[in-house]
Amino acid sequence: MKPRRRRFDAGEYLVRQAKTRKAMIESGIDLLVIADPSNICWLTGYDAWSFYVYQCVVISADSELFWFGRGIDAPAAHITTHLPEEDIIAYPDHYVQSAEVHPTEYLAQVLKQRQLDTGHIGAEMDNYYQTYRGMHLLMECLQDATFTDATALVNWQRAIKSPLEIEYMQRAGQVIERVYDRVLEIAEPGMRKNDLVAEILHASTQGTEEFYGDYAAIQPLIASGPEASACHLTWDSTPIEKNTGMCLELAGAHNRYHCPCSRTLHFGKPPKKYRDIEAVILEAIDLVIDMFRPGTTCGEVAHAFTMLLRKNGYEKDNRCGYSIGLSYPPDWGERTMSLRDIDTTELQEGMCFHFMPGMWFDDWGFEITESLTVTPNGGQVLSNVPRKLFVK
Amino acid sequence: MKPRRRRFDAGEYLVRQAKTRKAMIESGIDLLVIADPSNICWLTGYDAWSFYVYQCVVISADSELFWFGRGIDAPAAHITTHLPEEDIIAYPDHYVQSAEVHPTEYLAQVLKQRQLDTGHIGAEMDNYYQTYRGMHLLMECLQDATFTDATALVNWQRAIKSPLEIEYMQRAGQVIERVYDRVLEIAEPGMRKNDLVAEILHASTQGTEEFYGDYAAIQPLIASGPEASACHLTWDSTPIEKNTGMCLELAGAHNRYHCPCSRTLHFGKPPKKYRDIEAVILEAIDLVIDMFRPGTTCGEVAHAFTMLLRKNGYEKDNRCGYSIGLSYPPDWGERTMSLRDIDTTELQEGMCFHFMPGMWFDDWGFEITESLTVTPNGGQVLSNVPRKLFVK
Repeated sequence: MKPRRRRFDAGEYLVRQAKTRKAMIESGIDLLVIADPSNICWLTGYDAWSFYVYQCVVISADSELFWFGRGIDAPAAHITTHLPEEDIIAYPDHYVQSAEVHPTEYLAQVLKQRQLDTGHIGAEMDNYYQTYRGMHLLMECLQDATFTDATALVNWQRAIKSPLEIEYMQRAGQVIERVYDRVLEIAEPGMRKNDLVAEILHASTQGTEEFYGDYAAIQPLIASGPEASACHLTWDSTPIEKNTGMCLELAGAHNRYHCPCSRTLHFGKPPKKYRDIEAVILEAIDLVIDMFRPGTTCGEVAHAFTMLLRKNGYEKDNRCGYSIGLSYPPDWGERTMSLRDIDTTELQEGMCFHFMPGMWFDDWGFEITESLTVTPNGGQVLSNVPRKLFVK
Repeated sequence: MKPRRRRFDAGEYLVRQAKTRKAMIESGIDLLVIADPSNICWLTGYDAWSFYVYQCVVISADSELFWFGRGIDAPAAHITTHLPEEDIIAYPDHYVQSAEVHPTEYLAQVLKQRQLDTGHIGAEMDNYYQTYRGMHLLMECLQDATFTDATALVNWQRAIKSPLEIEYMQRAGQVIERVYDRVLEIAEPGMRKNDLVAEILHASTQGTEEFYGDYAAIQPLIASGPEASACHLTWDSTPIEKNTGMCLELAGAHNRYHCPCSRTLHFGKPPKKYRDIEAVILEAIDLVIDMFRPGTTCGEVAHAFTMLLRKNGYEKDNRCGYSIGLSYPPDWGERTMSLRDIDTTELQEGMCFHFMPGMWFDDWGFEITESLTVTPNGGQVLSNVPRKLFVK
């Protein structure tokens, strides 16, 4: 008896595949080659840390769908997807990380055998897992097909979450609550930063009694004192200093779904600048949460936030959030919508966002953020971490 | 006073840059665009989880070298590199994850301004962090240049480690020793797998009193019972069962350098098949360790292992190892040398490998692996985790 690990029933995957096929037909795409592991997982359930070698899911506008990957990863496809044996196709190991041959050359042969090598083929041409060389060779091998950039086509189908997906994100929200409980319990000046991160990772993986913690697509980002001017630093062993602020950009995860949540923790009495920005950011969150309802645009949310910042004498020249959901490294964002002035996408019920009003200054930083889902009554937060500047 | 986090002095980076320039000149490359975060870090020290957006280091065969990335990540470049202010170049935030504009279009403008837009430009065309679209647009914008695939050009310069790099890897080796101490102490049937991984991540981040644990480029891979037939599964909350074997593929990391080390842990008395394969793998490790000396080829190591397997009635149709060192997700391998028959690379002193004789069968798996460095007296292991089938 083969082991099985499936997170949604076959029906939910069929709905997702049907949505994708509809979008393909609307774009005139006959065949789609999906290399983004988040899209692969969303379409089929496939889940393994095998994306460091080439793998993809191929879906046709009519009825074909197969997983294509390295031989030693085929068992993971059997375990984690509902795909029948014949739709799990493995390439030989000498195609792995070779300067001579590329897995997409083997894929081209498979497509020819299955008579899928003509028509209009879409591919994710701006994705980490679809390299220039792989794409170029696939095009060279399939001279009877035309190619089009279908980056984010599947990502867009993921934008509106099903009830079970939202439940997974709320469970991730419970995981991140535990993480901050642990941080507040244990963090103190003198502690090595890596020892704090050890506790963070322990709590985020342990999760709750009911819901396990999965790995987040981004490692814990922590920076204290002047280093908090840089928003994407990971840890080292320098001790936490007294009388400094520390930004924590963390996420809970469950079944690959994420609930990012950032907070700032100040050791000792915070200077006035921390209290000033705290008041503005809390007001901003109250303001925008109410805007996360169908019909509002991403740009309107961003604009309202920018105006509030300006009224208070602050500027922020980078996006203040993005859509979230199922994800793999290196990004827990969905890479579709961004909360910025130029994004005119209308919000719809069931979309999920990380509202990320991080403020980074010359020699300090401040982050209080919320993940939420769009409902007819405004945004519903996915976790209940106390929303304030933490002081210890 | 700006904070600083630097892992090597300016001199070591200059040596690395000089090696790279020599290789560029030998390949007729005037300018190299490096998007692989491992190569960026190795060349400059830049270290942040910012590779989910486009970033690169540009190096010319003569004297130019600059970091190019997102505005909010420029502070991390100041903190982690020795680069002067003028060689840290940021692009505006609306280039981030946009369907309309791409950071490489902005990069093209920078190259034109600096009169670096002619000649022969090398780029990493088969790397996760150089997408087809980004590459294609860069080529389109720079019509006066010719382009060549320079995938792994920098990776090859990294192959022979400096003494300090080997020291970092040995520290990573001490970290992984602590991890297995913790696993053996705490793992038991009935425990949820995520609770075991929570302990693994805690120990691997805590490291030792002297040496902190950095994040490994691959999350802990654990699979027990029949799931161990799949080698790249991560965890869920199913409990560990009695009388099963569990494969653990883990690494210690320190300052981004890795020491991978896999072991198998059996709960209860192991069946004969575990003891049989244990004997063969231990014999194989003894055999090949001695071969990791200058002059042996990767293919010879692989061949010796294959022959020993066959003599004992086993087959393995995938590579049995690869070069290692500094790395970022999704891969802790260096993506140059593979231990497989077709790889004729000669070993040199200071190269480092993960010898990975993982054996995956229909409904179980077995892993005992070692990371080691090449010396004139044979391979020197980077960690001292007891080399045996663990039984609890």
